Amino acid sequence: MRWAPADVGRVQLRGVAQVALSPSAWTGLLFTIALFTGGWRIGVYGLLGAAASTLAAVVLGADRDGVSQGLEGYCGCLTGIAVVSRLGVSWRTALLAVLAGAVCAVLAAATGRLLGRLGLPVLTAPFCVVAGVLAVALPTAPATAAPWEPRPEFTSLSAAQLGRAFCDNIGQVFLLDRWYAGLILLVGLLVASRKAAVAAACGSVAAILTACVMGLPADRIAQGLYGYNAVLVALALGATFLTPTPWSAGYAALAAVATVPLTAAWLAFAQPVGGSPYTWPFVVTTWLFLAAAPALDRPGISFEKAK
Amino acid sequence: MRWAPADVGRVQLRGVAQVALSPSAWTGLLFTIALFTGGWRIGVYGLLGAAASTLAAVVLGADRDGVSQGLEGYCGCLTGIAVVSRLGVSWRTALLAVLAGAVCAVLAAATGRLLGRLGLPVLTAPFCVVAGVLAVALPTAPATAAPWEPRPEFTSLSAAQLGRAFCDNIGQVFLLDRWYAGLILLVGLLVASRKAAVAAACGSVAAILTACVMGLPADRIAQGLYGYNAVLVALALGATFLTPTPWSAGYAALAAVATVPLTAAWLAFAQPVGGSPYTWPFVVTTWLFLAAAPALDRPGISFEKAK
Amino acid sequence: MRWAPADVGRVQLRGVAQVALSPSAWTGLLFTIALFTGGWRIGVYGLLGAAASTLAAVVLGADRDGVSQGLEGYCGCLTGIAVVSRLGVSWRTALLAVLAGAVCAVLAAATGRLLGRLGLPVLTAPFCVVAGVLAVALPTAPATAAPWEPRPEFTSLSAAQLGRAFCDNIGQVFLLDRWYAGLILLVGLLVASRKAAVAAACGSVAAILTACVMGLPADRIAQGLYGYNAVLVALALGATFLTPTPWSAGYAALAAVATVPLTAAWLAFAQPVGGSPYTWPFVVTTWLFLAAAPALDRPGISFEKAK
Repeated sequence: MRWAPADVGRVQLRGVAQVALSPSAWTGLLFTIALFTGGWRIGVYGLLGAAASTLAAVVLGADRDGVSQGLEGYCGCLTGIAVVSRLGVSWRTALLAVLAGAVCAVLAAATGRLLGRLGLPVLTAPFCVVAGVLAVALPTAPATAAPWEPRPEFTSLSAAQLGRAFCDNIGQVFLLDRWYAGLILLVGLLVASRKAAVAAACGSVAAILTACVMGLPADRIAQGLYGYNAVLVALALGATFLTPTPWSAGYAALAAVATVPLTAAWLAFAQPVGGSPYTWPFVVTTWLFLAAAPALDRPGISFEKAK
Repeated sequence: MRWAPADVGRVQLRGVAQVALSPSAWTGLLFTIALFTGGWRIGVYGLLGAAASTLAAVVLGADRDGVSQGLEGYCGCLTGIAVVSRLGVSWRTALLAVLAGAVCAVLAAATGRLLGRLGLPVLTAPFCVVAGVLAVALPTAPATAAPWEPRPEFTSLSAAQLGRAFCDNIGQVFLLDRWYAGLILLVGLLVASRKAAVAAACGSVAAILTACVMGLPADRIAQGLYGYNAVLVALALGATFLTPTPWSAGYAALAAVATVPLTAAWLAFAQPVGGSPYTWPFVVTTWLFLAAAPALDRPGISFEKAK
Repeated sequence: MRWAPADVGRVQLRGVAQVALSPSAWTGLLFTIALFTGGWRIGVYGLLGAAASTLAAVVLGADRDGVSQGLEGYCGCLTGIAVVSRLGVSWRTALLAVLAGAVCAVLAAATGRLLGRLGLPVLTAPFCVVAGVLAVALPTAPATAAPWEPRPEFTSLSAAQLGRAFCDNIGQVFLLDRWYAGLILLVGLLVASRKAAVAAACGSVAAILTACVMGLPADRIAQGLYGYNAVLVALALGATFLTPTPWSAGYAALAAVATVPLTAAWLAFAQPVGGSPYTWPFVVTTWLFLAAAPALDRPGISFEKAK
């Protein structure tokens, strides 16, 4: 089978869209625009990583259906962004992004085989492994996060912080921290599915509420550092893998709330060695809540489709 | 099916008893008394967590048999105790204990599904995950554990330290550090099964011996910090999951001894980020020794019952 | 079945040889000589650990075929070396090496059962668990590794450093850091299989290249700290588990390259608590690349034999 250039472009855009569990090329196009609002470097490395990962999957003989759905591109895309955000632009970091993308393809095949028999999806686990290893192996500046203590009161946010937190919770899915990037991503979700956009927005709100109740620091809430995992969990459980019912909506809400302390703990754990939680909290929470679902006898809390 | 108030009370007490792998409501009653000797806060939050976890399991439609055996309560109970021990009494921490208990119910379902096919029990893994995440996400005081160096000689304990270590190794199963709490727990075990009480006592002695041979610091040995996992392993392998024979007794003893360095390592690893081993060393050691058992061809080293 | 003394000796030597995935007693003999070049302590504790682990496996009733192939000895051998390297010679450390070897036998049975159904080999995972726990539980000196920053340029090595790195990448498989030990090990591999010796040499070269491109510090490259996992991965994927084809050679090369950042990350992560990566990067990388292989449709990237 040969692919026309248009097919190649569509697979590439789908690879970017699959970061938010969407197979729509139009969504991917809007996501790509959002990447370039973060700077040309992020856009170029994101596309480079997605292309490297997809190409490696094709060369290694991975499943063609998955390739054409963009399932071999999204981890490479995120890895490319993570590489350039940390290490900047150079021939060495471009080579690194390409090799890291190739390793993502192998890890996606391994995760798919190991978890497929349990009915669990790969999600962004390959990206988290590769980006986490590179972050700790190639330290840049020493971690400078100021310690903080949980407050005995709610964290209160200004209107500006609230708006920024809502948008950045979505933007940080792609490691972006500008509010308009988050809005473009939300529009991209809306193009593919109204359900997905609503789920993402609800996940962002749930994360802000939880973080404020926990007394987490306001500036980090506003940067979206505690909320992007909740957005992804809401997309996965609220709009992708479970049948929407009031039961499954409540189940997804509990999962989204649970990601906030998990993200805070992972930040505290990973920062001293130069790491980052990336989207591990999303991956782990979604796996556990999907694994539990068949044992729970309520309408909607069961797999709609395996991916 | 509807439950009478007496049934509800029995399930609640069984939930407390299952912390030590017992389904006896009388054992649960004595365990609850032991909790209240640690202060009313610990007793109330322990019962609150057990109730929240059990209720969440019922609402989510988990297996009714497991609920009535108390299997949905013990992780919530321990999580409630861990929450109040760290963060004190307030409306926020009560809400936290309830939500954390609900997450325990989901994690118990997930762990049961993932490990059930391997024939392995859930044990306290959900509690360890939830309590560990909260401990790292909500730091209280910075960790102040003084560093120490292993001594080239045995640690020698005074008679008082020895007695305290024996009792606190049992008490720390419920995060309690008063000697009489440990004795009440031991009586509670005796009510349900003489075999269980003997196993717990032997586990405590084995842990003290191992810790002294390793040259671990005497004050921490006396606080029971190195021994509660050995007590639980002895209960699990010596009195619950394996058929008692001289072979399986030796196997359980090797496992109990192995938990002491594992607990010491986990303490050293978790303390800098504000964490604690909780009962991870027990969970991991029991899983590995149970997973190995069917491959080992000796009488008694095989599953008596899957739980 | 009874074993003659000659059988016992052969099993013992095979146990040493299996560290590098070889069942040849002659290879084991040369490996044992290499151990003694590191000092009599290392040789004696390596043999003691291998014997303890094998004996424990026999006593516990493990599979006899595995025992006679040396598969119950190699983790105990490495654990004995790790114990004496850290804690020195004494009756206590000898007891520790024996008990740790016995635990290795249990962990090998557990890992074999859990991974066997996935078609994955045990590798050195039991050693990594036991040695890692002991290293963190019994801290010796505080970690004094100087921090470093990745350089924007390639690391350049002198000819002497290059030669030492090539040899020590092989020697560090047994925690040895003398260049002639590495050469004796290479000869030992050559005795069993030319393919294995070539794979080990290529793995060492690939690791040096990768480490230089990453800008890792020259003195550590020369000590072999970044390369021994690549040597083992090359042995496993290039000469043991996959059918040799150009495809599988490239696959093994990608895996060997990937171990270098993984080892660097593990070093940075483990050192502050007194730990070490040991051969975890080899184990994890080999598991993932083997798990992915059946999903990849290229000649040679499929299991030659399950071990």
